[in-house]
Amino acid sequence: MDAWRTAIVDARDGHIRIRGYDVSALMTGRTFTDTIFLLHQGRLPTPAERALLDAILTGVADHGAGAPSCAAARLAASGNRQSVSSAVAAGILAVGDDHGGAGLGCMEMIAEGLALAAAESLSIEDAARRTVEMARAQGKRIPGFGHRVHSTDPRTAILFDLARSGGIAGDGVAFVTAVERAAAAIVKPLPINIDGALAAVLHDMGFAPAFGRFVFLIGRMAGLTAEVAEELTREKPMRIRIPVEYDGEAPRAMDSQP
Amino acid sequence: MDAWRTAIVDARDGHIRIRGYDVSALMTGRTFTDTIFLLHQGRLPTPAERALLDAILTGVADHGAGAPSCAAARLAASGNRQSVSSAVAAGILAVGDDHGGAGLGCMEMIAEGLALAAAESLSIEDAARRTVEMARAQGKRIPGFGHRVHSTDPRTAILFDLARSGGIAGDGVAFVTAVERAAAAIVKPLPINIDGALAAVLHDMGFAPAFGRFVFLIGRMAGLTAEVAEELTREKPMRIRIPVEYDGEAPRAMDSQP
Amino acid sequence: MDAWRTAIVDARDGHIRIRGYDVSALMTGRTFTDTIFLLHQGRLPTPAERALLDAILTGVADHGAGAPSCAAARLAASGNRQSVSSAVAAGILAVGDDHGGAGLGCMEMIAEGLALAAAESLSIEDAARRTVEMARAQGKRIPGFGHRVHSTDPRTAILFDLARSGGIAGDGVAFVTAVERAAAAIVKPLPINIDGALAAVLHDMGFAPAFGRFVFLIGRMAGLTAEVAEELTREKPMRIRIPVEYDGEAPRAMDSQP
Amino acid sequence: MDAWRTAIVDARDGHIRIRGYDVSALMTGRTFTDTIFLLHQGRLPTPAERALLDAILTGVADHGAGAPSCAAARLAASGNRQSVSSAVAAGILAVGDDHGGAGLGCMEMIAEGLALAAAESLSIEDAARRTVEMARAQGKRIPGFGHRVHSTDPRTAILFDLARSGGIAGDGVAFVTAVERAAAAIVKPLPINIDGALAAVLHDMGFAPAFGRFVFLIGRMAGLTAEVAEELTREKPMRIRIPVEYDGEAPRAMDSQP
Repeated sequence: MDAWRTAIVDARDGHIRIRGYDVSALMTGRTFTDTIFLLHQGRLPTPAERALLDAILTGVADHGAGAPSCAAARLAASGNRQSVSSAVAAGILAVGDDHGGAGLGCMEMIAEGLALAAAESLSIEDAARRTVEMARAQGKRIPGFGHRVHSTDPRTAILFDLARSGGIAGDGVAFVTAVERAAAAIVKPLPINIDGALAAVLHDMGFAPAFGRFVFLIGRMAGLTAEVAEELTREKPMRIRIPVEYDGEAPRAMDSQP
Repeated sequence: MDAWRTAIVDARDGHIRIRGYDVSALMTGRTFTDTIFLLHQGRLPTPAERALLDAILTGVADHGAGAPSCAAARLAASGNRQSVSSAVAAGILAVGDDHGGAGLGCMEMIAEGLALAAAESLSIEDAARRTVEMARAQGKRIPGFGHRVHSTDPRTAILFDLARSGGIAGDGVAFVTAVERAAAAIVKPLPINIDGALAAVLHDMGFAPAFGRFVFLIGRMAGLTAEVAEELTREKPMRIRIPVEYDGEAPRAMDSQP
Repeated sequence: MDAWRTAIVDARDGHIRIRGYDVSALMTGRTFTDTIFLLHQGRLPTPAERALLDAILTGVADHGAGAPSCAAARLAASGNRQSVSSAVAAGILAVGDDHGGAGLGCMEMIAEGLALAAAESLSIEDAARRTVEMARAQGKRIPGFGHRVHSTDPRTAILFDLARSGGIAGDGVAFVTAVERAAAAIVKPLPINIDGALAAVLHDMGFAPAFGRFVFLIGRMAGLTAEVAEELTREKPMRIRIPVEYDGEAPRAMDSQP
Repeated sequence: MDAWRTAIVDARDGHIRIRGYDVSALMTGRTFTDTIFLLHQGRLPTPAERALLDAILTGVADHGAGAPSCAAARLAASGNRQSVSSAVAAGILAVGDDHGGAGLGCMEMIAEGLALAAAESLSIEDAARRTVEMARAQGKRIPGFGHRVHSTDPRTAILFDLARSGGIAGDGVAFVTAVERAAAAIVKPLPINIDGALAAVLHDMGFAPAFGRFVFLIGRMAGLTAEVAEELTREKPMRIRIPVEYDGEAPRAMDSQP
């Protein structure tokens, strides 16, 4: 087989270099969040960028045992206690467009909206209005906006404050706040939620849209592992019972053999 | 890289041969259950063996949406609707020693019990008694025995009847029925459940203990896929809410920054 | 929590009924393939339908250890030997649009093509031509057509022969053969492969497009489990070494600490 | 269904509190590594503990695309490009006793060795000698010792230096260095590798043995996500071909139908 190409990690001589930096150097004086940034961007973050990525990762680390990712992990741990990897992976598999997925969708929307602004020499304000009108015409939700519980998600302000005070806030933050204004004018008040906020600041730090999904997976690993640890130490095997109501076909006899 | 060795499937020339048989020949006149048997044993089953493996696979195909495997699959589908593979895999990951695992454990117990009988020239009856006494002394459950709901699992009698009428029942069936008698005498009545029954007849068909787990996974795929299909066509995303009661640390303020 | 609705399996009283039939009845005289059909369609197959589904499941059961699904399963088994579920699930996760996915894509194309024919009162021949022209204009591949190795996939003829002799072949088979003719006339000879063939006959048996993916997952479980069994019994842990060529950033020193 | 108990995250009122701390407070001035420590220990780390956990997470973040976890993730991405969660989960599933697993095994060995010392009033030196002798008598490898490439793993010294300068090094570090001396005297020179080093310092920070596995999973997520991102952006679908050598049964004809 041909060798696989990679530009991420060089471990040929037993020394590990991540994007060119010796792992030993990264282990002293740098943080895990620096390593995450470096692996995905190929450069180390500034202190302001690191603080912002730290805030995002903590912001998505855990949302409670009832979220699909954590619940799936606990269910797997309930039936298959010997394999920690299995339980954690089951949690990862519940993350998708409907759970942990709006960050990626919003980053794509930001990239498209800003490309539209550039292509047609529109202001960000006008491009945001077009984006909202298009979503409305197609009956689509705007990813990263609206919230079941909060009228305002406190995590949004934290990320935007960090981005502004760190000199990071740019077109991404400008675009999502313009979308918020446009939505309020055209549709209804739709506050920027954590997914919309992290999408904006990740865009402004130069991440590709796919990182909107990756960052959720990395952050959520902190919570998933803790949930699985609790399930295994505190609960009995097979303790989880989901009540099921059968509403199908009535009992029937088999008429004839084939 | 060196080539990987395999003795299962030969697909080098585009023709697929499973254990030497052309897949075209297996597709006409043979059944999927024949293929499963062939892949795992290297030979085709007799009609009686095939009927028995069919009965086992159907017997474990589905036990309802509340079982950990099906519930984990539905939870994953609830958050991540774009990926059918993810949902099905999450279900697979809930299968382990405590859910779908007693078949393997019982097959190992049968192999050890019969090895003990051979090594020490014991009758099967005596080896079974020793097995039960050992489990009792160690405070261990006997895998494949006992049931939450049934006093007698109707599926056990079906498998044993098929094994006997097909001339397959041998030392495996003899050993587990001897264990059932010994348990009733020494501990308490512990009926052979589906896992114990399938372990006995799989042993008598020449399968290795690991197949006790594999057969559950293959059979359960029929149910898992149907459960995921139902979740995706009948239910909304994120519809599953698990109620959670927090009983940890009270709210606390952060004293000092690090 | 509210109970989960299900119309598939009723196991409330300990008795298991699949789509209304007692599992005991299905275990005697019926096959695993009957159970698969029943779980997904809500009715038992005719003998001809069962033979066709058997042929499909065997046809996709295994394609060798180098396919992404089997290779991923063996890699997982290589690092994580304690968990059979983990290895099998890793294999399942490699199944997607590019591997095992053309069946679903082709079933959707059949459904759309026949809907087009009905809506615009076109012949199947004309709808097939429109389908090919549309794919060509959009630069898209036609799912279920063409093959790396075979000029003609022998499995296609087997499925179509079974469908015709069993009186099952209908609009699905008619449509994909019309697409094959149209492609040969407009683009180039593109033989119907196993994915196109199974899509056609599954359509004619009344399955929804999603079953084009499910049937691959169910059939491939037979092979995945056998591949994992072989890896665990025949190979050492961590035996798999993939050669990697690093072509990224040269070694660099860290300028300054954050 | 009864509510699930949890002591980790309280999200009942929409506000998220992790182990009692408001997530907003953790997002400002605290790091992601603080959150990981807090989720698993119920308390925030000291600066020295945080620096040590950062070093561990970075130390295990990635070891190159050829490791089973990364290779399985890339294989899954190769066949199933639509689902990032699937690829990442496939990588997680390759982590087990033989890959990423020595940390847990070494933490258990440390806990047992120190319990032995306490129970029998042995010195750490004597308990370490007993541990090595026992492993030798049972023909078992000592988890966390020895290395394929390095005679000395540079990451070990980094972790121990951080632990000593931060006042964290305690019985865990003392025990593994005593084991290293005992192994050199009784068996052969077996340097402490990264798994042995992280096990020692995690023990001294008060983590339970299971965290030896969890920390690898959390750290490796940084690398897995970057490897998957590279596979999806830089490589074509199905580009990975593993060469397979079939050495099984020769082609054979089917004698008779069942």
